[in-house]
Amino acid sequence: MNIAVAGLGLIGGSLALALRPSHRVRAFDISEAARDAARAVGIDTVDRLDDLLPSDVVIVATPLAAVVTTLAALCDRAGATVLLDVGSLRAAVAALAETAPAAARIVGMHPMAGAATAGFASARADLFRGRPFLIVPTARSDAAAMAVAGTVARDAGGSATVCSAEVHDRAMAFLLSAPLAVASALAVTGAAVGPLLPLAGPGFRDTTRLAGTPLDLAEQLLTANPGHVVAALAALRTALQEIESAVADRDRDAVRKLLAQAAEVRGRLDS
Amino acid sequence: MNIAVAGLGLIGGSLALALRPSHRVRAFDISEAARDAARAVGIDTVDRLDDLLPSDVVIVATPLAAVVTTLAALCDRAGATVLLDVGSLRAAVAALAETAPAAARIVGMHPMAGAATAGFASARADLFRGRPFLIVPTARSDAAAMAVAGTVARDAGGSATVCSAEVHDRAMAFLLSAPLAVASALAVTGAAVGPLLPLAGPGFRDTTRLAGTPLDLAEQLLTANPGHVVAALAALRTALQEIESAVADRDRDAVRKLLAQAAEVRGRLDS
Repeated sequence: MNIAVAGLGLIGGSLALALRPSHRVRAFDISEAARDAARAVGIDTVDRLDDLLPSDVVIVATPLAAVVTTLAALCDRAGATVLLDVGSLRAAVAALAETAPAAARIVGMHPMAGAATAGFASARADLFRGRPFLIVPTARSDAAAMAVAGTVARDAGGSATVCSAEVHDRAMAFLLSAPLAVASALAVTGAAVGPLLPLAGPGFRDTTRLAGTPLDLAEQLLTANPGHVVAALAALRTALQEIESAVADRDRDAVRKLLAQAAEVRGRLDS
Repeated sequence: MNIAVAGLGLIGGSLALALRPSHRVRAFDISEAARDAARAVGIDTVDRLDDLLPSDVVIVATPLAAVVTTLAALCDRAGATVLLDVGSLRAAVAALAETAPAAARIVGMHPMAGAATAGFASARADLFRGRPFLIVPTARSDAAAMAVAGTVARDAGGSATVCSAEVHDRAMAFLLSAPLAVASALAVTGAAVGPLLPLAGPGFRDTTRLAGTPLDLAEQLLTANPGHVVAALAALRTALQEIESAVADRDRDAVRKLLAQAAEVRGRLDS
């Protein structure tokens, strides 16, 4: 296929690198430095977003806050081109699709992959190896467009799982937003130990790592999906309160039972 | 010095390996397999706890639940031997010291180091390189015993920081118990996404890693220090509630302010 990538950060850059052995890939980034870096490793780049059309697929891999405006800018001229976006929240894209031209084809394709560092410099062809992509239909998805999304996910090295925008965004509230919120709450609370804070071992460091998420992304993850996020945080506070009550009651059996339940759930993840 | 180590797990084993270039080291473990493993790498072992005496120092590095009974067993026969324990909670040792023989010398020496894996097989001589040891006096500590603890910490590759049992245990509630509790609460809550749970990315995985803490240790970390732990968990719930309220109010400025505060605290840690 002719695949175009808009946005050459970690995800977009890695997709360009992963897809070029099997497809014709062209890419754009608003940053000239990012375009130069991509060209330096042999990726074909264009200097304007519009120059990505026509293509079979345009993958929108901008920062989350720019996804909807980028899709909107492409939508009117896209014709039969399938627009995929890798954004981690679906509600805003779902709303855009409702009012998009009838001929537009828009599908969400959210890879569950990432790294601690951002930008094209961190991009790598194997970032998606074995990782799931959540393929999320919109009001402007058809079977052919869904199939294209699945092909792109697999050709990038991953697997494709289909779910609704509602199921996706609820899951992300639990899997992305809630960890960010607890990591941030724990970091803020840790300030209470004052000069002893730097003594924190790997447990505290791992558990608070997400508190260092870039501020714009962190804000989006908490505020772009407020209904599901508030529900997830309320569930989390309830779980934490249960542990606190068991400790306050000196009820070792209850503490142990809660810990065993948590270990069982954690054990379902491979690492 | 003649240094004896009781308990050849990750910490005790690593101390034996780290200290033997500069001291005469002998070690004991209740597990014959652990003693064999230590002997296989050239550590001098004895077959009974009592055989560790006389020594200049005995380092008690048993599982947390056995620290007090091991110290008590050594206390009566220890004479001038300095007893150091590496336990991560001080209140129970402080209580023991109050009633120990007047001649006993007991000092806490808690290394802020660890690893995701346990046991002598994971022990390594450089585990403590650059890591702080908290040196905590008891009612049976004197200047000479405190100095011995400092020497052992430094000769193991670390640095020595002195604090009271009260300051130590409060800090551990924030730095060890609270992360365990939030990791466990987050894991329990994550079960809500059902079949999508395995899609969790590195953020959720890191933040819930401590939910996989061995159950006996996890129970101790929450229940052996209940006053400080309840206070830390209450502070944590308050911080989490503030984030939740800001999200529920769609107050992006407040969300951003809380996130920035968390990032600032997290930034005080090097990694």
